Amino acid sequence: MDGKTASRHSQVTFWKAKPLKFLKSVMPIFGWAPTYSKTEAQNDLVAALIVTIMLVPQSLAYAMLAGLPPQVGLYASILPLIAYALFGTSRALAVGPVAVASLMTAAAISQIAAPGSPEYLTAAITLAFLSGLVLVAMSVLRLGFMANFLSHPVISGFISASGVLIAASQLKHILGIKVEGDTLPHLLGGIFGSLGQTNPITLAIGVSATAFLFWTRKRLKPILLARGLKPRMADLLAKAGPVAAIVVSVLLVVAFGLSGWAGVKIVGDIPAGFPPFSLPSFDLSLWQQLLLPAVLISLVGFVESVSVAQTLAAKRRQRIVPNQELTALGASNIASALSGGYPVTGGFARSVVNFDAGAETPLAGAYTAVGILAATVFLTPLFRFLPQAVLAATIIVAVLSLVDLAAIKRTWSYSKPDFAAMAATILVVLLVGVEPGISVGVGLSLALFLWRTSRPHIAIVGQIPGTEHFRNVERHAVITDPRILSIRVDESLYFANARALEDAIYNHIADQPQLRDVVLMCPAVNVIDASALESLEAIAHRLDSAGIGFHLSEVKGPVTDALKRSDFMDHFKGRIFLSQYEAISTLTVKA
Amino acid sequence: MDGKTASRHSQVTFWKAKPLKFLKSVMPIFGWAPTYSKTEAQNDLVAALIVTIMLVPQSLAYAMLAGLPPQVGLYASILPLIAYALFGTSRALAVGPVAVASLMTAAAISQIAAPGSPEYLTAAITLAFLSGLVLVAMSVLRLGFMANFLSHPVISGFISASGVLIAASQLKHILGIKVEGDTLPHLLGGIFGSLGQTNPITLAIGVSATAFLFWTRKRLKPILLARGLKPRMADLLAKAGPVAAIVVSVLLVVAFGLSGWAGVKIVGDIPAGFPPFSLPSFDLSLWQQLLLPAVLISLVGFVESVSVAQTLAAKRRQRIVPNQELTALGASNIASALSGGYPVTGGFARSVVNFDAGAETPLAGAYTAVGILAATVFLTPLFRFLPQAVLAATIIVAVLSLVDLAAIKRTWSYSKPDFAAMAATILVVLLVGVEPGISVGVGLSLALFLWRTSRPHIAIVGQIPGTEHFRNVERHAVITDPRILSIRVDESLYFANARALEDAIYNHIADQPQLRDVVLMCPAVNVIDASALESLEAIAHRLDSAGIGFHLSEVKGPVTDALKRSDFMDHFKGRIFLSQYEAISTLTVKA
Repeated sequence: MDGKTASRHSQVTFWKAKPLKFLKSVMPIFGWAPTYSKTEAQNDLVAALIVTIMLVPQSLAYAMLAGLPPQVGLYASILPLIAYALFGTSRALAVGPVAVASLMTAAAISQIAAPGSPEYLTAAITLAFLSGLVLVAMSVLRLGFMANFLSHPVISGFISASGVLIAASQLKHILGIKVEGDTLPHLLGGIFGSLGQTNPITLAIGVSATAFLFWTRKRLKPILLARGLKPRMADLLAKAGPVAAIVVSVLLVVAFGLSGWAGVKIVGDIPAGFPPFSLPSFDLSLWQQLLLPAVLISLVGFVESVSVAQTLAAKRRQRIVPNQELTALGASNIASALSGGYPVTGGFARSVVNFDAGAETPLAGAYTAVGILAATVFLTPLFRFLPQAVLAATIIVAVLSLVDLAAIKRTWSYSKPDFAAMAATILVVLLVGVEPGISVGVGLSLALFLWRTSRPHIAIVGQIPGTEHFRNVERHAVITDPRILSIRVDESLYFANARALEDAIYNHIADQPQLRDVVLMCPAVNVIDASALESLEAIAHRLDSAGIGFHLSEVKGPVTDALKRSDFMDHFKGRIFLSQYEAISTLTVKA
Repeated sequence: MDGKTASRHSQVTFWKAKPLKFLKSVMPIFGWAPTYSKTEAQNDLVAALIVTIMLVPQSLAYAMLAGLPPQVGLYASILPLIAYALFGTSRALAVGPVAVASLMTAAAISQIAAPGSPEYLTAAITLAFLSGLVLVAMSVLRLGFMANFLSHPVISGFISASGVLIAASQLKHILGIKVEGDTLPHLLGGIFGSLGQTNPITLAIGVSATAFLFWTRKRLKPILLARGLKPRMADLLAKAGPVAAIVVSVLLVVAFGLSGWAGVKIVGDIPAGFPPFSLPSFDLSLWQQLLLPAVLISLVGFVESVSVAQTLAAKRRQRIVPNQELTALGASNIASALSGGYPVTGGFARSVVNFDAGAETPLAGAYTAVGILAATVFLTPLFRFLPQAVLAATIIVAVLSLVDLAAIKRTWSYSKPDFAAMAATILVVLLVGVEPGISVGVGLSLALFLWRTSRPHIAIVGQIPGTEHFRNVERHAVITDPRILSIRVDESLYFANARALEDAIYNHIADQPQLRDVVLMCPAVNVIDASALESLEAIAHRLDSAGIGFHLSEVKGPVTDALKRSDFMDHFKGRIFLSQYEAISTLTVKA
């Protein structure tokens, strides 16, 4: 406590003394920009080019997934990237619209407004703004630890299930049919019911695009390398797969007039030009409706961003500052809200691409923003005849890599409670929705943790011959003394398990008529709360009236301190031994 | 798991083999009734007489507190007592209407129907029925452990605050004024606003009755003993204080016609006769509204009943079976619902009186039921002129003993998190309401536990000279080796704290350039979940690439088993040592 207050205090005085250093901690760009070299600039520019080529189709596609006009996806890929470059600590994280956040945006807003309406767009902008406020507030209040309560299996299950749900939601565009619904049974039921209305030309385009994109993703790079291309060029061409699909399909639509007689759905008019200045709604009832989705999007986005940023930073022995990442992601979302965008976060695939392509500083992100801006200003007329089926193919190919079946299998074999939380998350996401899914997952994983700590593992221990070490009598060949019961409880003692300890001790006493002393071994007891303290007093009282001594051993420092603050020691007639060995040595001599 | 399945299995076959023994476990009365002796019968009868004298005024008063007609309190004190005698395992617990459950009933039902209306009574009966179902379901599904999540400080704060709230709600009857409201500020504000309407005669009766009841409660028994009365007779007379207050006040009202010209509010007509047969409403929307209150009343009632029953049983070296108590309390509430009553539970004061008066078997409760039935049939006409102020005085004197200021002080000095949960419970009960109060208390105590486990205590340890024991370097004079870092984490490793461990280890590595090996000492690690397993793998990987060995020591049996089930051991290059001493001995030789 004192240490923390001191460090916070020193940060304040430090800010007064050295404004530049403080500025560097809030805006890391001031730390690295003064030494920015030509090599770094070259590397950043190449990475930015590759990411731009990857991000343009994704931005259009994820906006469609979120139920928004395609240009909104482009707007969300400009100013937010600049904001992250100013505030972020990761040198490789690429922010922008991502699949899962787009799905969560659609789930949250389609409850409030009709897709395509101006209210829908306003709600999306407001959601980005709220999400930004939540992230900045978490940073200022040091609430980043909240993200720790999203366990890996829950996050992993959530991402996998979202991937399946997103892919299913895109099938209608591949088939050229209309399907309503946002759960897996609804989507699949709707698709089967409307299979008769399938548009054959759309289907042909969609299936070819999907197959082509899978091929460029998995096979193209090795082939190009084998043909003697340089790795960086091979990478660039492989990443340009979606761009090629767009160009070819637009040419086909224009050449054969497919959007007319063949009924192929196209993206339509996209306004060209700079992103507009926009403001969120300040309607309080809208804020109330969007607050929970904003918190969930922020938490999920933060967890995903930090984990990819940490993984990439570790590879180059750099460090990221999680609390500063909250500020950076918050600033990115506020920037998105002010420039006609929707919620953004760090994308897994594009960050890896950015890293592999050689990005050295967050400026790579800023260069990407310039690239997207150029596309927004000059290229939008070209996207008019882009078939929606091609965007759907881009999404399907991208999200299927989110589905991690190996993680499900690994969790099943390692831990059934973790698997239960994961399975519940997956099922609820698929059958009910994304927000209930993540909420149920978090709730269940916490409930299972609490339930487990309420039924602690309690072992009778004995001395391992020739050592001073004591272990479970059921697992090791140990020495015990019928006059002394050594019992070890493998959990902090708190209200949920205080009664279990009482029951266990009373049951063991009944079995041992020769018993003179009970020693409770506490190496795993990290806290004894007020309820457990009452239980210990009850145990001490009851053993005393049965003529049995009650002692503690290996009580940790913080626990001893707390006991000394209470009046427990005034009544306690037993001893507190430093080690179980000391306890047994002393009590055996006495007996 | 196997042990449990086996025991459940054996219970089933056992039932087929020995039906009488199975019957005894479900209805304990078959266990003790065959040997019921004349002495036991005498003792039970005396205890029943004292409890009856205490319970008649309390039943009328608590029904008034619950917003119900007075006879409903009497009905709730007949059949439920018989049901408990059949199913209960405590030989002293006295069930019936109690103050806190009456307050909770009023809080739940006044949201749904107007006090005095037939719907209000139906809702009360339905609440008792639902509460009975919840308790029986908890017994069948072995969910009694849920009660463990109500920590002592939360329960204690809840009871104290309820006592204050109940006393405040009765002041209007003492003053003879009308006040609406169910929070402390509303009640006190209403009372101050209406002080001008105080009825002086009612006030005189109310204050005299309160003073007299306090006097009989605290002073009368010692005086009677000093005058040479036998203890049992002194006890009987002291407990008859409320009856005397009733008789005298009724005589005064009748003699001077106080209910007419003086405007003293009286109880009014009470129908005489047996309790009616009643059925709960089966309206699903009513059930939905009442389910949460029913769960909270059940949990609070169960916790209170079991703790008083266990305390009393321990004094005579008897045992109670908590799961069977759930059945018994559930049966009592269902019996209450079927006989025109409202939620009942074990009362603290009356159980202690029952025990002190010598009750030996649950039949004392059945005899009490006969006494209350006699009062219901023959005495109700006498209660017609009973001033409401006297009932209010009965309640105030009874509930002020619930307020436990010492517990608040003790909790403050022992544990701030426990105190925070307690204080939140008290404040929310007083300022918002009883249900939000208990919910906030439970929620906060769980949240604080989770928060604490998410920031585990992590210590660097060293060997205590001359022993094989290792303790915190900051608290003990210990031997350390700059080449080996021994780090002990004092918490199970799970998703909420996995990152904290990574950070701690990375920070310590940076400080020690000579470091060759890190040993993570795990005596306090009771579980490693899937998220923490990934963190351990990340730590192992990172230390390995920095050329530092990573080992575990004192890993418990269940944790080792789980690690062996995963693929962790396939990649793990370090060793798992039985004890920290073995780890240091081995690594020092190697180094």
